[in-house]
Amino acid sequence: MSKTPLLKPGFRFGILGGGQLARMLCQSGAQMGCEMHVFSESSTDPAAQVTAFHHQGSAPNTQALKTFLQQVEMATFESEFMDADLLTALAQETGTTIYPQPSLMRLLQDRLTQKQLLEQALIPTAPFLSVQTEDDFQLARKQFLKGFVLKKRRFGYDGKGTFVVRERATFDFQPDPFHYIAESFVPFRREMAAIFFRNSNGDICEFPLVETKQEHSRCLWVMGPMEHRAWPQLARRLRRWLDQIQLVGSMAFELFDWQDQLWVNEIAPRVHNSAHYSQDALSASQFHCHLAACLNMDLPSTVMCKSNFAMYNVLATGAPRIGWNLSGDTALHWYGKKENPKGRKMGHINVLGTTPRRALATATKLRKSVRV
Amino acid sequence: MSKTPLLKPGFRFGILGGGQLARMLCQSGAQMGCEMHVFSESSTDPAAQVTAFHHQGSAPNTQALKTFLQQVEMATFESEFMDADLLTALAQETGTTIYPQPSLMRLLQDRLTQKQLLEQALIPTAPFLSVQTEDDFQLARKQFLKGFVLKKRRFGYDGKGTFVVRERATFDFQPDPFHYIAESFVPFRREMAAIFFRNSNGDICEFPLVETKQEHSRCLWVMGPMEHRAWPQLARRLRRWLDQIQLVGSMAFELFDWQDQLWVNEIAPRVHNSAHYSQDALSASQFHCHLAACLNMDLPSTVMCKSNFAMYNVLATGAPRIGWNLSGDTALHWYGKKENPKGRKMGHINVLGTTPRRALATATKLRKSVRV
Repeated sequence: MSKTPLLKPGFRFGILGGGQLARMLCQSGAQMGCEMHVFSESSTDPAAQVTAFHHQGSAPNTQALKTFLQQVEMATFESEFMDADLLTALAQETGTTIYPQPSLMRLLQDRLTQKQLLEQALIPTAPFLSVQTEDDFQLARKQFLKGFVLKKRRFGYDGKGTFVVRERATFDFQPDPFHYIAESFVPFRREMAAIFFRNSNGDICEFPLVETKQEHSRCLWVMGPMEHRAWPQLARRLRRWLDQIQLVGSMAFELFDWQDQLWVNEIAPRVHNSAHYSQDALSASQFHCHLAACLNMDLPSTVMCKSNFAMYNVLATGAPRIGWNLSGDTALHWYGKKENPKGRKMGHINVLGTTPRRALATATKLRKSVRV
Repeated sequence: MSKTPLLKPGFRFGILGGGQLARMLCQSGAQMGCEMHVFSESSTDPAAQVTAFHHQGSAPNTQALKTFLQQVEMATFESEFMDADLLTALAQETGTTIYPQPSLMRLLQDRLTQKQLLEQALIPTAPFLSVQTEDDFQLARKQFLKGFVLKKRRFGYDGKGTFVVRERATFDFQPDPFHYIAESFVPFRREMAAIFFRNSNGDICEFPLVETKQEHSRCLWVMGPMEHRAWPQLARRLRRWLDQIQLVGSMAFELFDWQDQLWVNEIAPRVHNSAHYSQDALSASQFHCHLAACLNMDLPSTVMCKSNFAMYNVLATGAPRIGWNLSGDTALHWYGKKENPKGRKMGHINVLGTTPRRALATATKLRKSVRV
């Protein structure tokens, strides 16, 4: 392993985006000794509140983005739905490294190229078809007799741009400029997730496998660490693949537990809601590991799990008066959002317990004390 | 127990001071959902870097302090060496609560009244005498035959204003406008520490007993949790005393382990270097518990210890080039200070381990990878 360079305090690390992932990256980065710079639209954004270095601007404004990149030594992003080609060009122009690599962002933000990448790497995933036309759509109906999920190839997020096409039910297919993929239904037993981090030296750090629960296509809770007989083999394949694509940063995997197998559902080259538990349950949080990987610090193969754990998302109900009545030792992580439209992620609660289920039971109870 | 009020997000919490304790209070408060406001001299202060709400000013400027207090809903401080009478008056004038109560700060910032308080509460502490004049000094020499420590009554910190008067050695006594106390030598076996938190409902939360190591009157490392046969009884007395004085906030105790007894050395009504380990080793950090106590959130009697632990302070050597080469999962907490004069506290490292000693051994090793 090559020598990690001596890291200097006050390293100017930029975050593209100002939401909760950016906020928690900022908090971790400041603790590590970086000067955290945020590029986002408003000074009231979640991340803008926790640093003295906020730069107002939006990503479509090329000049503002370039000026921001000129002021930092390295940058990362909280959403993979950015203009990857523009980022590649600006990184080159400004000499500021962006991790994970925008070229990877480009391949992963398109569900078709994402699925093709997985297929090439022999990573198990649900069968799929590319759908551009009504004919392609009808072919998918024939091929996936038990129904399928129609997903826009780009800009889908938390269930947006995703449609369920049920066996024999009518469905009004509407072509879309970004096209779709059709993905066979997977009658999974449960959903699971895991995240990996890789630095440019090639160290890979792996977090434990967790069970996740989605409701209305949004993450509701997570618990772990969990086991699955197919996980060790899949984890080996994923590590090999991350080496092949030379990832620097993090890669989150959403998985289906399906007939003794684990299939990859979706992946994202960033920190992920399914690993928020790490802030309180692991010896290093996902935000810390993501930045450490970008900074090419030595990474341990796995981080230490302090306890069994659960994470419960606090999603807004749109209540007019919001607040909570929690015990002083509850690990509520609040994002500082000013508005609470129904379904919005406002914060999360991390809980430790003697088993994952007991931690989840406590988290479920605590969640009820937060009125949002 | 009375009902905890519903806490609303965006509660404006003010911190008087901009150092590392203020910084870590800010980081915890933001996580809990408070809007953290910092009152300090410079926008490059450690705490000023981790919030969008920095208010420039220094405490002797009454008007600036008052303006600050008017803008927040509650305030706390990181140093007990402030003008307590001024704070009391401004709190009343602005209607902004300051916790812990400035009246307590006043009693504790004077070593004589601090010792008298402990004596009245039957809390074991080293014998002492008030020293104003040369005659008082000579009386102390006669009374404490094995030597004593002469401490300025006010504004002593990290060994400043503290003088060792050895048996038979010459000592040139210089009167001081703040006067002194003479405190008998305690040939202690080791130093220990603990911290308590109390809310206005009367809940008290207790952290574990730890062993601490001072070098040149500054904290070098901490390890725990530790046991001591005198601790359960002393802890009961301390709890009773905190109830008597109606503390709201935190109270840190430095202790001497001495002939099967534990004596209280010094106390401070604030978060403390000896409890930094809590950020990574307990289910809630001292910063979180301090704010939760001020906010009158329900407090558990004790918080959960995730593991055995150690904390190692990173004190500056004054090296021209500073930086580190640490593994990506090392919990280095950096304070963001721009200058590194010899002996300055620049950050700390928290380590978990199977025993306190093993954690300390790892921390000692990791400390060597940080060049400051």
